[in-house]
Amino acid sequence: MDLNALRTANPDHWSKATAIRALTLDAIAAANSGHSGMPMGMADVATVLFEKHLKFDASAPSWPDRDRFILSAGHGSMLIYSLLHLTGNADITLEEIKNFRQSGAKTAGHPENFLASGIETTTGPLGQGISNAVGFAMAEEIQRALYGKRVVDHYTYVIAGDGCLMEGVSQEAIGLAGRHELSKLIVFWDNNNITIDGTVDIADRTDQVRRFAASGWNVIEIDGHDPKAIDAAITQAKSSNKPSMIACKTHIALGHAAQDTSKGHGALTNPEQLLAAKEAYGWNHGPFEIPADVKSAWESIGSRGAEDHAAWKERFAQLSERKQGEFNRAYAFEAPKKLASAIRAFKKDTSETQPKLATRASSEKVLNVVNPIMTETVGGSADLTGSNNTKSADMGVFLPENRKGRYVHWGIREHGMAAAMNGMALHGGIRPYGGTFMCFTDYARPAMRLAALMKIPTVFVMTHDSIGLGEDGPTHQPVEHLAISRATPNTWVFRPADTVETAEAWELALTTSETPSVLSLTRQGLPTVRTEHKTKNLTAQGAYVLAEATGKRQAILIATGSEVEIAMQAKEALEAEGIGTRVVSMPCMELFAAQDESYRKRVLPAGPVRVGIEAAVREGGWDRWLLGERGREAKAGFIGMNSFGASAPANELYEKFGITVEATVAKVKDLLG
Amino acid sequence: MDLNALRTANPDHWSKATAIRALTLDAIAAANSGHSGMPMGMADVATVLFEKHLKFDASAPSWPDRDRFILSAGHGSMLIYSLLHLTGNADITLEEIKNFRQSGAKTAGHPENFLASGIETTTGPLGQGISNAVGFAMAEEIQRALYGKRVVDHYTYVIAGDGCLMEGVSQEAIGLAGRHELSKLIVFWDNNNITIDGTVDIADRTDQVRRFAASGWNVIEIDGHDPKAIDAAITQAKSSNKPSMIACKTHIALGHAAQDTSKGHGALTNPEQLLAAKEAYGWNHGPFEIPADVKSAWESIGSRGAEDHAAWKERFAQLSERKQGEFNRAYAFEAPKKLASAIRAFKKDTSETQPKLATRASSEKVLNVVNPIMTETVGGSADLTGSNNTKSADMGVFLPENRKGRYVHWGIREHGMAAAMNGMALHGGIRPYGGTFMCFTDYARPAMRLAALMKIPTVFVMTHDSIGLGEDGPTHQPVEHLAISRATPNTWVFRPADTVETAEAWELALTTSETPSVLSLTRQGLPTVRTEHKTKNLTAQGAYVLAEATGKRQAILIATGSEVEIAMQAKEALEAEGIGTRVVSMPCMELFAAQDESYRKRVLPAGPVRVGIEAAVREGGWDRWLLGERGREAKAGFIGMNSFGASAPANELYEKFGITVEATVAKVKDLLG
Repeated sequence: MDLNALRTANPDHWSKATAIRALTLDAIAAANSGHSGMPMGMADVATVLFEKHLKFDASAPSWPDRDRFILSAGHGSMLIYSLLHLTGNADITLEEIKNFRQSGAKTAGHPENFLASGIETTTGPLGQGISNAVGFAMAEEIQRALYGKRVVDHYTYVIAGDGCLMEGVSQEAIGLAGRHELSKLIVFWDNNNITIDGTVDIADRTDQVRRFAASGWNVIEIDGHDPKAIDAAITQAKSSNKPSMIACKTHIALGHAAQDTSKGHGALTNPEQLLAAKEAYGWNHGPFEIPADVKSAWESIGSRGAEDHAAWKERFAQLSERKQGEFNRAYAFEAPKKLASAIRAFKKDTSETQPKLATRASSEKVLNVVNPIMTETVGGSADLTGSNNTKSADMGVFLPENRKGRYVHWGIREHGMAAAMNGMALHGGIRPYGGTFMCFTDYARPAMRLAALMKIPTVFVMTHDSIGLGEDGPTHQPVEHLAISRATPNTWVFRPADTVETAEAWELALTTSETPSVLSLTRQGLPTVRTEHKTKNLTAQGAYVLAEATGKRQAILIATGSEVEIAMQAKEALEAEGIGTRVVSMPCMELFAAQDESYRKRVLPAGPVRVGIEAAVREGGWDRWLLGERGREAKAGFIGMNSFGASAPANELYEKFGITVEATVAKVKDLLG
Repeated sequence: MDLNALRTANPDHWSKATAIRALTLDAIAAANSGHSGMPMGMADVATVLFEKHLKFDASAPSWPDRDRFILSAGHGSMLIYSLLHLTGNADITLEEIKNFRQSGAKTAGHPENFLASGIETTTGPLGQGISNAVGFAMAEEIQRALYGKRVVDHYTYVIAGDGCLMEGVSQEAIGLAGRHELSKLIVFWDNNNITIDGTVDIADRTDQVRRFAASGWNVIEIDGHDPKAIDAAITQAKSSNKPSMIACKTHIALGHAAQDTSKGHGALTNPEQLLAAKEAYGWNHGPFEIPADVKSAWESIGSRGAEDHAAWKERFAQLSERKQGEFNRAYAFEAPKKLASAIRAFKKDTSETQPKLATRASSEKVLNVVNPIMTETVGGSADLTGSNNTKSADMGVFLPENRKGRYVHWGIREHGMAAAMNGMALHGGIRPYGGTFMCFTDYARPAMRLAALMKIPTVFVMTHDSIGLGEDGPTHQPVEHLAISRATPNTWVFRPADTVETAEAWELALTTSETPSVLSLTRQGLPTVRTEHKTKNLTAQGAYVLAEATGKRQAILIATGSEVEIAMQAKEALEAEGIGTRVVSMPCMELFAAQDESYRKRVLPAGPVRVGIEAAVREGGWDRWLLGERGREAKAGFIGMNSFGASAPANELYEKFGITVEATVAKVKDLLG
């Protein structure tokens, strides 16, 4: 590349873009760690986007109607940190840039939405950002339909790399965006032909232009270092009625000795090469030094949107008070006041004599109560609507011709669904939930983990939660999936035992603002076991005494979900033999762990033998409750799974794997000696 | 559809295809469960494939040079069961068909490779079969290059549905197959436009023909009910120098009242409609009844390959004895005899005074010993070759121009890599291993679980296995991933502490024939802790006494991987204060669990306080060893993670999260009271 030609052709642009490249080089040299090449390659695209198109107000990074900017290629984090710092974001000070990747810095190795404003989503695991973006763009469409163009009207911009496009989840995202004609989604592909192992074509020769076009995208190909071409492409993309992909031919690590090589992808810390690159840029400034005129030009960009923002505030103020309240409430992830009373009334109405009901069906009943009073919920399923019971009566289907539709047919795309739901939650104003079979937690995992890390309340409705699904067999029967979600920090895993607990789990999932929930629901019918104390949300305590022992308490049975029924029957059998038995229902281990010790000891006093019952592996967090955290609390046993399941009718499988009343009784007696 | 026209146009074909449809209807009616529509829609394609093209010998379903047939749309399991039964497979008797989806039957809800011969892979989780198939086709290319066309020369056929193509992993598979010009891979797309939630276009409007073409595939579009067109398309596909996708326009549940509807996807059990469908087929036979002439025609198809098979045996016999032995040994997943001695010599040579070495680097050293003597290994990485240390010196890169290359650049495709590795193992003759960062277990999960379920020895090389990776931060730092793999049945999770244990872990991973292994390896350097007893493979026992207490044994420290170093230093500090401390290294919990009780008790005697140390969550199976299975064994504590990590240099993170010698010492003293 002839840098001189680039510089002289557009000197103002060049100095702004070079500021990004210089900060990138300096920060990574200081940290001795990071990824230099991508910010250096995409600095021109980002500069034009921020200067000419991105609607934002650096002094108000959470202005709801801002355009969203998502760095899907999150390893290039110095790009976004540079942009935030240069435009005057209050979180990303020069000090933070200097502390890149150091302990306590907001400038973490990869962009983390919970550390600094202006970072819309946490990226790094590739393919996530572009998939989140689909949810952002859907949320914008839904909110625009609800509140009007005067209040909601913004674009979602994404920078994605070759890694993002090779990850399978990107295909799910591309298919969704194309189908839903998300015309306000604009993706820049950093087409630099370099991955860590070599040139892209050692692993892939996909024609990305044809690939995106095949899914209904508008595609534009440009030189990613030509400011005019970048500007024109964005202008064209904004006017398209399709989502747009702008293929930007770039040079990774532009101007550095490592330009156009895999080495350029990583940390370029060699001091001589660093200086040589700066010299090639015509950048004669010390480390972390940004000349005042350049900083000032960038700050003008940062304040460019202030007027727009002020005008928006006026328009927003013209909404009815009710609408404003609803908008702000949803953005704050606050549940409406009437939710609590509606759930309480629903629980009260639950008949203990109702026929057996699967908790997935209970969940649908709850949704029929919740969705009409929470206009911010958006539901969906990965092509299992009838099985996941995720669609309540009044939702309407989200489609280009019905942007107010609150139900999404995600297709057979568990991962894309989970990532897009995260995007909806991050966008603000939407509380998303979506369903699949619990076993397919596996497909959704990367996005489920990120929901937890990002502290967003996405709800994962996971039905068919054990061997109780029967004939579909071990490929569809979760045994380790409760363990997987329970081992994940900041995740609430609810396994409700009946309709009452299902309603309580939903209430908790819908009122938290920072914890994703996994609802583990049955395919098979269950009786109502919670026949008393229905007013208070006992699930909020994580575990509680469902049935007290008659006579001397010799045993405590702890069970979740479908196995609470077994515990209740085992209690009856044991007490018939004079063995006083308490039953503890434990719908949420995480919430039980959060109770104070005195409550936990009241529920699980030392002394009686303990048996846990759950049609899953014991590794799912059981030992802490069975044995006590420091051990020596109780003699204990577990009735559950220690292998994969099998294909057969559900009742036969419970027998086959020994998850029965008889086995529970025998285990208690064995422990009592 | 005018069934009458179809029938009269090709009566012989029709009766064979109808036998599949009739068996499907009858088996699903008997089970009152299953998926009828797909086998009914794809019966014509399958019939032509089996009759005219598929190279197989029903009496020898594991003939190594057979064509592979993979039902990626595994819910249509009655298609493959019908085909196997009709062609005379010994496992799938009529009795098995009648017991479809019942306890103990080989005809499980979804096809399971370990239940019956002729089932090449376990499918059901969508997208897996087509991704396995890429591995099958790569294995064929590699073996053909090694043994010649006279011994290895077969096709891999796949039936995939809309669900398979919507799952993101299919894009990874398509990209790989296109890049590697896997011309012997032929995929039939069951283009029936129906998913469970409705027509495909409620969720996707991707032009699949353009999509496949964009990744370098040969694409043919046909009427999936026209035998001549099917035959011609397969013939054309076989002669292409690209992988082929045959888009078969079909009618789901052909001829049934539910034809072309979502209802047709599921279990069609209505007796009147069932009879009406059979009548429309002109099939006047009772349930499960196949007329002798039709059965005989199918059996001729089943024996069509016998001659080919016999000729192949002769050609195989012409290979040198050494080659034959190598071929058979690899197919049997038997390690070469010299592996054990080579590993032993390697361990012996390990200097205890070598500088600190990351276990990922130790792993590369082991691979440099192993790969030259195990010609069946095929390694690779999902674009992290230099970080995963997966490429040994002599491998060569697998590419169209180098089919003998034993190293695959998988691209940024963890899921596709894992699924294709499974395919290689299932094909036979190849022992695959592949690397990524441990945190991206999340991406590979669906295939990792299936490796365990399918009982194949795929090796997952997971480096950067804790906060010890440092600056990349929490998106890249596993904390729950040891727990995830340990909770999965039939999975060995190795977390070696040094070079010696790394070699032992590899030896075990390379000698098992039915258990996948996860190697959890560090980014950061570790000292050699195993300075004695290097002859025996102590990792095979799962855990062992690395260092005995001096004086009275008051504490046992149990640690894995990088934390064994901390345990050794803590022991020193504790013993300086007169607290006799044993250190147990526990590189593999699963293998320790498999030891007899007396050994486990020798390693972990009741009495001394126990502290576990692992830079991961306690839910990773720890309590069993800390507290004893039934509790009351010991007072215990754990030093590890209970949150996500952070971005900073590794040593600072260990301090920040309290995984230190000091914290260990304090915990022991606290427990001792």
